[in-house]
Amino acid sequence: MSKNLTTREEDYSKWYNELVVKADLAENSGVRGCMVIKPYGYAIWEKMQAELDRMFKETGHQNAYFPLFVPKSMFEAEEKNAEGFAKECAIVTHYRLKNDPDNAGKLIVDPNAKLEEELIVRPTSEAIIWSTYKGWIQSYRDLPLLINQWANVVRWEMRTRLFLRTAEFLWQEGHTAHATKAEALEESEKMMNVYADFAENFMAIPVIKGLKTETERFAGAEETYCIEALMQDGKALQAGTSHFLGQNFAKAFDVKFANAEGKQEHVWGTSWGVSTRLMGALVMTHSDDKGLVLPPNLAPIQVVIVPIYKTEEQLNEISAVVNDLSSALRKLNISVKYDNRTNQKPGFKFAEWELKGVPVRIAIGPKDIENRTFEVARRDTLTKEVVSKEGIDTYIKELLQQVQVDLFDKALQYRETHITEVNSFEEFKEVLEDKGGFISAHWDGTAATEEEIKNTTKATIRCIPLNRVDEAGSCILTGNPSVGRVLFAKAY
Amino acid sequence: MSKNLTTREEDYSKWYNELVVKADLAENSGVRGCMVIKPYGYAIWEKMQAELDRMFKETGHQNAYFPLFVPKSMFEAEEKNAEGFAKECAIVTHYRLKNDPDNAGKLIVDPNAKLEEELIVRPTSEAIIWSTYKGWIQSYRDLPLLINQWANVVRWEMRTRLFLRTAEFLWQEGHTAHATKAEALEESEKMMNVYADFAENFMAIPVIKGLKTETERFAGAEETYCIEALMQDGKALQAGTSHFLGQNFAKAFDVKFANAEGKQEHVWGTSWGVSTRLMGALVMTHSDDKGLVLPPNLAPIQVVIVPIYKTEEQLNEISAVVNDLSSALRKLNISVKYDNRTNQKPGFKFAEWELKGVPVRIAIGPKDIENRTFEVARRDTLTKEVVSKEGIDTYIKELLQQVQVDLFDKALQYRETHITEVNSFEEFKEVLEDKGGFISAHWDGTAATEEEIKNTTKATIRCIPLNRVDEAGSCILTGNPSVGRVLFAKAY
Repeated sequence: MSKNLTTREEDYSKWYNELVVKADLAENSGVRGCMVIKPYGYAIWEKMQAELDRMFKETGHQNAYFPLFVPKSMFEAEEKNAEGFAKECAIVTHYRLKNDPDNAGKLIVDPNAKLEEELIVRPTSEAIIWSTYKGWIQSYRDLPLLINQWANVVRWEMRTRLFLRTAEFLWQEGHTAHATKAEALEESEKMMNVYADFAENFMAIPVIKGLKTETERFAGAEETYCIEALMQDGKALQAGTSHFLGQNFAKAFDVKFANAEGKQEHVWGTSWGVSTRLMGALVMTHSDDKGLVLPPNLAPIQVVIVPIYKTEEQLNEISAVVNDLSSALRKLNISVKYDNRTNQKPGFKFAEWELKGVPVRIAIGPKDIENRTFEVARRDTLTKEVVSKEGIDTYIKELLQQVQVDLFDKALQYRETHITEVNSFEEFKEVLEDKGGFISAHWDGTAATEEEIKNTTKATIRCIPLNRVDEAGSCILTGNPSVGRVLFAKAY
Repeated sequence: MSKNLTTREEDYSKWYNELVVKADLAENSGVRGCMVIKPYGYAIWEKMQAELDRMFKETGHQNAYFPLFVPKSMFEAEEKNAEGFAKECAIVTHYRLKNDPDNAGKLIVDPNAKLEEELIVRPTSEAIIWSTYKGWIQSYRDLPLLINQWANVVRWEMRTRLFLRTAEFLWQEGHTAHATKAEALEESEKMMNVYADFAENFMAIPVIKGLKTETERFAGAEETYCIEALMQDGKALQAGTSHFLGQNFAKAFDVKFANAEGKQEHVWGTSWGVSTRLMGALVMTHSDDKGLVLPPNLAPIQVVIVPIYKTEEQLNEISAVVNDLSSALRKLNISVKYDNRTNQKPGFKFAEWELKGVPVRIAIGPKDIENRTFEVARRDTLTKEVVSKEGIDTYIKELLQQVQVDLFDKALQYRETHITEVNSFEEFKEVLEDKGGFISAHWDGTAATEEEIKNTTKATIRCIPLNRVDEAGSCILTGNPSVGRVLFAKAY
């Protein structure tokens, strides 16, 4: 099976597209730009959801649900936000089909069922949510309001790619309201940290925390925090954003509260989200030419067991041993699949589970029965060893933990060797061309420079790292003064 | 607070509308017909989701996700289904807004961004899913295909009510494909049983299992199984449906499989769903004039503890005892809230938690500290008793189980006393008018009779009960022969 997979070396982009489909994560649908998330891919997404949801609730947030549609007049209330999304909105204009009088069995839009006001399919929900918050917030006692929503959103992207950029995608969007600027800023930073923690410790994807430049900021935000990951082809991927909205939406939707002294003030807001795009980051961070490599935390199947046999008697003997092993592993909360299909050979099964990224494979044949051993193979390193039956369950548990750690370390090492400091535009272009990755360089802080660099090289400022050191320098393009380096990269 | 609630006696419909809003379950949004599900309501929905999802997975189903939009040509492929939903579809016709040249700061639909083909916002997903299944099913080895999706759907209802009938609602929709008719029928029946089990044992709502008449069947189905519940005002509510689709969608979307002999056959299908409508059923089955009554299984807060005190010293003493109690209860997986707000009196708190339906309230004052007791109040019976501190945790655990059982029994008793057998149309109308509930009557099996009864009385055939006995009789309207009774009722 995996023979058909284009290698990363040959064509990274093609490798990705093929892998997502062949590993049964997702596929394109009959609807332009919209994907079908297949059961195997969705099972991974469910694990992400469960962990994020737990983290959101642990930090005091509650879930709620707001409408899919936003009336046009509501949508345009916060002007910058509206401008930012106006060019990629799906718009509902009618509410009924009728039989086509000229074409039996066909339907047409009923012109008599035109909406008085068009509805925008939410590209993000600030407008509908802040228009609701107006009714929920009267006094400082109603604050902070800490709400999250799991939802689908639609952005009419012209060039789409499975998970990375689709017209419809799934995400969560947090929307919080606070009495003070300091508290809202703290919330935005806190949620960026939650995302970073999740990416690194659950998905094994190292990320850099930073602030977006004004150009790259969310439309309607005063500050956008982000986490940026680096893919194996040297391109960056924005893996999550958390916005400090100032009082922009509170003013647009007239959301005020009476403070402890009874004085009316506008509320301060944040919003933050991660999406099914993380599935793309997952694939591109860890996987290889044989297929997916899944961190054990996210693997729908953590251990697959393949019997090696010639006779039915051997199979029966093996199955008995496997049943014991499976129960022992399940007791340790390890998800196990016994692949005892009789119509496929072991080699085929090995390739299939490699393609699907199952972290650990156990093979067992008559020799193993005799020796009371198993053959244990790691998906990430493609290494095998023979392990004694005694204590195999805790051995596997520890192995899975080790794989999780090793995947992060490997990705981190790649990332660390792909941050290059440059001090001239020539060097910048050279590194970008030859090596890719993050390029740490001085920038004069203007949007004009940022744009010229982007137009010349396709690299954008991914972020101003939160942990950057103060360092006087000169902008690589203009030579104008700079107070510290920012990170550039080509990005997804 | 609860003083403001209209009583059921005064106006059942108004009572419901007020209660849903006052208890913080949901509210109307600024978008016609669409609701906001508030955190407290959403927490209940999450508990339903978690349990249903567990039940679906236990019966071998996997989750996936399919697009929100259905191109018109795909939508109309299965004609009956398309006809059934055409009159209430939200239709996307454009994909971009632009600045209004005549009105600065305003946006208008960009006429240059008209879609070549209109997109229907899914009212249900058979079309998009069966068009996908065509690519997933080649051989009998690919069957059965057992998939569920959690999603939002849109039906442009003209008269909407929170949870019961909204333009957008949340639901799950199962879509399965099978090699044989018998297996598909078995699946539809199985999922009806899963729904009945869930309604009765998790939501404490008794239901009658049955088949819909042809008139009431899902558009595109060959048979619709349903569960029907009875609300306190004597009106029925369809709480879930499971459809046997025959080969209708397989034929419309050309989904065939090679059977074991290599012969091509059309696939057999089912679909089944329950929605946020169940929230309405929950409210209307158990609640009373003081507010919500929640079965412990569904209550976001199962136990609320209210301190009764005059001095801060007393409060400190009480809080110490409450901390111990809370930990003991949490160890038994009971969700507890300690309402130690200092700006509200106990009476206000009692009313608030009654309104919100918390199953058990514990009050503790200085006398209780002295006597080593608690005052324990049941929300469902509004009864109180003094309980000794020793063994209070297991006492509460058992009490919660008892409340769950009692709520079901109470609802069952109401239902059982509201199924009336009648043998004439006069009697039918009388019972319908005076008492409501299910009316068990003979019907001649024709759609014409069904419609006349509906037009005359507003009662519809809720179902042909699965457990009905063979009984020769005469149709209450026409006198024509009938082979058994069906259940009529006015319905939500």
